[in-house]
Amino acid sequence: MRVMVQKFGGTSVATKERMLQVLEKVRGGLQNGCKVLAVLSARSGDTNNLLALASEWSDNPDPAESDVLVSTGEQVSVALFTMLLKDAGIRARSCTGGQIGVRSNSTFGKARIRSIDTHAITALFEHYDVLVVTGFQGVTEDGRITTLGRGGSDTSAVALAAAAKAELCEIYTDVEGVFTTDPNLCAKARKLERVSYDEMLEMASMGAKVLEIRSVEFAKKFKVPVLVRSTFSEAPGTLVTQEEQSMEQIMVSGIAYDKDQARITLRSVRDMPGVAAAIFGPLAAARLSVDMIVQTPSRDGVTDMNFTVSRKDLRRALDIMTAVGEGVGGIDIVHDDNVVKISVIGVGMRNHSGVAAKAFAALQAENINILMISTSEIKISCLIEEKYVELAVRTLHDAFELDKSSYLED
Amino acid sequence: MRVMVQKFGGTSVATKERMLQVLEKVRGGLQNGCKVLAVLSARSGDTNNLLALASEWSDNPDPAESDVLVSTGEQVSVALFTMLLKDAGIRARSCTGGQIGVRSNSTFGKARIRSIDTHAITALFEHYDVLVVTGFQGVTEDGRITTLGRGGSDTSAVALAAAAKAELCEIYTDVEGVFTTDPNLCAKARKLERVSYDEMLEMASMGAKVLEIRSVEFAKKFKVPVLVRSTFSEAPGTLVTQEEQSMEQIMVSGIAYDKDQARITLRSVRDMPGVAAAIFGPLAAARLSVDMIVQTPSRDGVTDMNFTVSRKDLRRALDIMTAVGEGVGGIDIVHDDNVVKISVIGVGMRNHSGVAAKAFAALQAENINILMISTSEIKISCLIEEKYVELAVRTLHDAFELDKSSYLED
Repeated sequence: MRVMVQKFGGTSVATKERMLQVLEKVRGGLQNGCKVLAVLSARSGDTNNLLALASEWSDNPDPAESDVLVSTGEQVSVALFTMLLKDAGIRARSCTGGQIGVRSNSTFGKARIRSIDTHAITALFEHYDVLVVTGFQGVTEDGRITTLGRGGSDTSAVALAAAAKAELCEIYTDVEGVFTTDPNLCAKARKLERVSYDEMLEMASMGAKVLEIRSVEFAKKFKVPVLVRSTFSEAPGTLVTQEEQSMEQIMVSGIAYDKDQARITLRSVRDMPGVAAAIFGPLAAARLSVDMIVQTPSRDGVTDMNFTVSRKDLRRALDIMTAVGEGVGGIDIVHDDNVVKISVIGVGMRNHSGVAAKAFAALQAENINILMISTSEIKISCLIEEKYVELAVRTLHDAFELDKSSYLED
Repeated sequence: MRVMVQKFGGTSVATKERMLQVLEKVRGGLQNGCKVLAVLSARSGDTNNLLALASEWSDNPDPAESDVLVSTGEQVSVALFTMLLKDAGIRARSCTGGQIGVRSNSTFGKARIRSIDTHAITALFEHYDVLVVTGFQGVTEDGRITTLGRGGSDTSAVALAAAAKAELCEIYTDVEGVFTTDPNLCAKARKLERVSYDEMLEMASMGAKVLEIRSVEFAKKFKVPVLVRSTFSEAPGTLVTQEEQSMEQIMVSGIAYDKDQARITLRSVRDMPGVAAAIFGPLAAARLSVDMIVQTPSRDGVTDMNFTVSRKDLRRALDIMTAVGEGVGGIDIVHDDNVVKISVIGVGMRNHSGVAAKAFAALQAENINILMISTSEIKISCLIEEKYVELAVRTLHDAFELDKSSYLED
């Protein structure tokens, strides 16, 4: 039995007319000889309306009951869509997360999938050609409804694909795939034919927002090929898949940026063991997540400690730094939230030198000052002033010739 | 463990403010030393909105998927109400029909309850003081969602009360109880303190609409005492219970009427064996339900056959009669839909003569012509012209002195 998963987001199922377009995608899967697991989000706006209802009812809605409430959004979607499939003569039925055996832990509101009962899927496919499944939700061991948190439908889809040993997990959305950079900032942005899980993870975490990051981790772990494509066109989309030798030849795949950055600098911190722990321990205890960290070389026994946090966390992070600053001698605290992180991403850079140098040179040529730098195996990130973001994206996109189908270092 | 069931209809849970009134009723149950099973309908209007959505999506919505859709209405109610209970510090959780073990057959849209898993209720009450249950729904043997049909929440409540061996099933609604007749037609209508299951069945089937008829049958079968009362007042309500000796002394409990009647007369039908079957067989085959049937005494080998059907079925019934009429000689078919059935109901009349005579005399004194009469053990029904309905209700209410707390025949 060949199985494919197709996941449709909220805008794709918002109206009857759009659902009829979705139906054609499902029919395509069937014509391709596959059984189809169609994973649906709630119709655009429904989830927000339900959350608004919850906050009208309670200042602090019980998380378990909030999940019971919010999960009705997907239930409405799958029932309506299955009606259309039945009217089209397709052997279909809807399934809630619980009915298809998606077991999660009991962290209501942002539960994590523990297991999927593959027997349920196999048994149901004996009677149906299409199973229409509520995305974004599961049930606990004792049968209570959970939701996987915003964007959890992608994770549902990939997890179901892994459980059903699907040959492909298609994620239908309102964009045509993964681009070399944000087309809104750079007219030359080009759609990628394929991208590795690791590259996609870097792009998703930078706010590329095409795929939810947890779903990519899941896909990587279970080696599920994921095809990102548009509900509203026939364009082939972008395949997110395992890294292949040929991919490494492509040094740089994309340029991402993240505006949700704020920089804090502790000047003249004593350069001694335990200082980093004294600074970052309290931040972690307060559940503030720190992104880039750069320590300047020590001079006269003191150093500058630079790091970035999410802009919404800046005020709390500064309060914590004021409290711990004196103990480490860093009483001079400065901050700046007019900064942006821009990243050059590509699995190929692992085996090639010169990417960093080329990126820095390109930015310098445009007089864009680099405030901080951090690197990973497949990514170079630079913190720059926010006003330069569009220029920097276009400059780097040009420098690595991302508008051409591949950039190979000689 | 003492358990009580409290059922709240759609108007009682329509807004947060009303739900807060409902919360006080639940608190009353707890203060009374009981665990509470609160059975909720969907908020007023929600079910109709969901059904409208279904008809927008399909001319003939798949019944199973329609149930998946419509059942979200109650799920929203129970989640919101449980949030309020939790905020009030009450140990509560919501349960869908499936979670609390309401098994039904698979007649989607109007399923019938087969069994309730009492172990689930007992186990849950070890951790919670209030279980907030979606009325109107269950699950099939293989876990598919069903709904019990309009008004099914009353049936859910009574069935849960039977399963949990509840000492009382309170049905909260927007009226204060069961009245001797429709207060809109007769200012002297008086709320009954108690009424027997059989009397209630006659009243419900006559459109008294306080309790759904299936729930009364269920209550009678499992001897569940049902208290009908208002969410919005402290009035004591009406207890629907087993017939007691004292009730038989009360000859007449109420006057009901039913405007959904249309009369058909087949004149000069041959009076011979098999005629009744020839007439009513085709009506039953077409699933038209016939209410009153009166055959006039035979004269010269012919007779008049009179019967009533629901007004919406009149056209189809006439078509069927035209088809079968010739075969039985009754080619003269007349009909009238300006008729109303008015009934005098009371378990006491079983042991007392004179009720029928008194009713006929009272109507005659007001020049109200009786078109048809039918009787049961505890009911006398007269078909009259619709224009007399208010007068007839008031006349019979006065004749049996129903405004006084009991009418005893000497």
